Amino acid sequence: MRHLLDTRTLSRDDAIALLDIAEDMAAVQDREVKKLPTLRGKTVVNLFFEDSTRTRISFEAAAKRLSADVINFSAKGSSVSKGESLKDTAQTLQAMGADGVVIRHPSSGAPQLLATSGWIDAGVVNAGDGTHEHPTQALLDAFTIRRRLHGTASRGRDLDGVRGVIVGDILHSRVARSNVWLLATLGAHVTLVAPPTLLPVSTAAWPAEITYDLDAALAQKPDVVMMLRVQAERMQGAFFPNSREYARTWGLDDARFAQVADTTMVMHPGPMNRGLEIAARVADSPQSTVREQVANGVSVRMAALYLLLSGERSEA
Amino acid sequence: MRHLLDTRTLSRDDAIALLDIAEDMAAVQDREVKKLPTLRGKTVVNLFFEDSTRTRISFEAAAKRLSADVINFSAKGSSVSKGESLKDTAQTLQAMGADGVVIRHPSSGAPQLLATSGWIDAGVVNAGDGTHEHPTQALLDAFTIRRRLHGTASRGRDLDGVRGVIVGDILHSRVARSNVWLLATLGAHVTLVAPPTLLPVSTAAWPAEITYDLDAALAQKPDVVMMLRVQAERMQGAFFPNSREYARTWGLDDARFAQVADTTMVMHPGPMNRGLEIAARVADSPQSTVREQVANGVSVRMAALYLLLSGERSEA
Amino acid sequence: MRHLLDTRTLSRDDAIALLDIAEDMAAVQDREVKKLPTLRGKTVVNLFFEDSTRTRISFEAAAKRLSADVINFSAKGSSVSKGESLKDTAQTLQAMGADGVVIRHPSSGAPQLLATSGWIDAGVVNAGDGTHEHPTQALLDAFTIRRRLHGTASRGRDLDGVRGVIVGDILHSRVARSNVWLLATLGAHVTLVAPPTLLPVSTAAWPAEITYDLDAALAQKPDVVMMLRVQAERMQGAFFPNSREYARTWGLDDARFAQVADTTMVMHPGPMNRGLEIAARVADSPQSTVREQVANGVSVRMAALYLLLSGERSEA
Repeated sequence: MRHLLDTRTLSRDDAIALLDIAEDMAAVQDREVKKLPTLRGKTVVNLFFEDSTRTRISFEAAAKRLSADVINFSAKGSSVSKGESLKDTAQTLQAMGADGVVIRHPSSGAPQLLATSGWIDAGVVNAGDGTHEHPTQALLDAFTIRRRLHGTASRGRDLDGVRGVIVGDILHSRVARSNVWLLATLGAHVTLVAPPTLLPVSTAAWPAEITYDLDAALAQKPDVVMMLRVQAERMQGAFFPNSREYARTWGLDDARFAQVADTTMVMHPGPMNRGLEIAARVADSPQSTVREQVANGVSVRMAALYLLLSGERSEA
Repeated sequence: MRHLLDTRTLSRDDAIALLDIAEDMAAVQDREVKKLPTLRGKTVVNLFFEDSTRTRISFEAAAKRLSADVINFSAKGSSVSKGESLKDTAQTLQAMGADGVVIRHPSSGAPQLLATSGWIDAGVVNAGDGTHEHPTQALLDAFTIRRRLHGTASRGRDLDGVRGVIVGDILHSRVARSNVWLLATLGAHVTLVAPPTLLPVSTAAWPAEITYDLDAALAQKPDVVMMLRVQAERMQGAFFPNSREYARTWGLDDARFAQVADTTMVMHPGPMNRGLEIAARVADSPQSTVREQVANGVSVRMAALYLLLSGERSEA
Repeated sequence: MRHLLDTRTLSRDDAIALLDIAEDMAAVQDREVKKLPTLRGKTVVNLFFEDSTRTRISFEAAAKRLSADVINFSAKGSSVSKGESLKDTAQTLQAMGADGVVIRHPSSGAPQLLATSGWIDAGVVNAGDGTHEHPTQALLDAFTIRRRLHGTASRGRDLDGVRGVIVGDILHSRVARSNVWLLATLGAHVTLVAPPTLLPVSTAAWPAEITYDLDAALAQKPDVVMMLRVQAERMQGAFFPNSREYARTWGLDDARFAQVADTTMVMHPGPMNRGLEIAARVADSPQSTVREQVANGVSVRMAALYLLLSGERSEA
């Protein structure tokens, strides 16, 4: 694997290979010395054009556990024009010998541009670009589902037959997009639930069913319910009803949760708005995978960095 | 030792054990390679909800000299409500496998909450919480006093019979609180000197004598005079007189310093307001321990991280 | 070498020794494991009173490739008065055992003050001070010129007979100052080209020729043309004409570049204003050394840190 830019073009075999390596990395987290020498002497740059402390420290922990040197580069608030800045920044990182670049950017497609422009030889990991994709989030979600379903027998398996429901602001969510593609590639069946104003017009091409009715979707007894974070700044105006109405219609509250099967996983990419898209009791229930998702994030990111930066890079 | 949250509940034996380990750590600072492999593979997170570059880099240097991986997490300015944020943040750090969390927080009790909530297994070090405590500051002060008094024969000793005076804004000072408890535990006699408006109402329960008269306190020939930093933002209004009057009544100026014994140590937690609570000449005199305090801070923090994160944790 | 504060007082032998060590460091960049154990256990502090992500990460990468521990200390926006702050900060770093301090400061002379004040034992590297100097930039420029001219036979050589032209806002440029002194020391002949309002009054003492006519300077067929960055904030008012007029009169546009010899290097310290002081096609041409300059920056900074912090420090 040369870069990790999206899940839409990620093959089933590559996805499973990455999840299997993440299993090995998860085992490292349980050791007394949680560190591998694999990427000693490699330099990973966290290039963040948007703030995201959680994602940044997850990648930073992942890189350090592989013994890479990590350099944090917060480019937010830079006054230079964006296109220019990205090219110049890329050439700077290239010249400094960056082996891997983890990029978070407000513009959809920026990681793709960075990876395919020829500006840089480094492996590029998309850590979230605009409303496009956030592939390591989808991979950690798939890893979490697989582990809950199959435990220590997860290796080599896909998600064939799994039924997942993704609920909320699909329109603006890169997490939803990355999950739709990856879950479908791994054999799962995906249903999207959202207010009509929060569905993209392009979903016809997506490998997912669409509904506006959360209760109907939950009545199908899905294996996985993934609640998306509501962005407060979109709560006013055309897109959203007010908070109370949102919670009543689209939230996973206690009453709805009581209808859900005991074996259904409740997922959330975090940070959660307790009481809005998810009730506090649901978030903290044993069916919630929220903490596993965070822990698995480090393992999945270690796997991605390993694949991109170790001797395994085939097309370098 | 499981956590280091305060000095009020720290036993004499635990305090002396920590100071003795800090002696070993101080010896590391004198070596050519100032580094021990002790915490290799451990992750220490500096979780700072308030800015404090000095304290942060002291802990960062301490952790790195023990070969830990350090992740800086500046949570200041986060818009989420504080209780929620702390829980979610704690669970994130837990899931990522943080072994130690060094927390600075504007709310008194936040480190205690973090350590006792069950959200996290990591060892928690309080790096200053509201007006409550700042235990590593008191420990480095005690270490500094012990070394000045006993030099290489410090090991195993307490501060029995030492007479200390703490001067200034006791009301708002976590440094004062931590020192009062620790000095008393180690056998010292403490006198607090402050304007009446800057003494907490609760001092009746403190193991310390109270006076409003600095000259009278200095006339008792104390072994240690600790000057607190005046917070400029409290200089107006009910609490404080103006700067000139403060310096004249509560400052350690040249005239007062001339009355003090040659052997009296002058301490300050830094950064100093030269000319306000302490005259410049006093701050730079051989009786001042200000620089030793900073240096000892790294050794004491190494000792704390070692006790909390190495195999020595007994109640984990 | 004890400190690296300027190029004005750097001897020819010291400069060549540093460039030769940088050749060794450049070889490290080509290895699989780009890391030397040389500065293990040493602590390098990046003390930045001004933002400069590029320079900071270049030094950070350099220090980490020598296995030093790096602590970033962004002092920008600190409210304390500057003189006081620098002294207190220096004493803090000293007490914490900093072995090297890389300082960027808006005031000319701050690194000199830090190095000669007695506040600190650490080796001090000037990473840019006011309008004074930026010595590692000049050293990486000299390294780049030497390598382009002599390739693998560079070792031990100076720049005797090289003719360089430096173009732009000389008045405010610490890069220009550092280059003027170093190039002259190494035997090169320097011509400065600038609008009359952007030349310092003191240039009479500089080892450089002055002209206002860029075309005349280029007609002399220089070996090196170094374009300085235009600071947008100086574009209005007395100093500068407007952008279009600046580009026409002082920019290296396509037409001017066509007049320049094929062997002439075009240098720029970055980041470039493409279309203003340099045309995009010129910046990306094979004659441009911009990317080499960035790469060589890491090697030169490794050499400087090595000389200052390893056993080689003779006057410690």
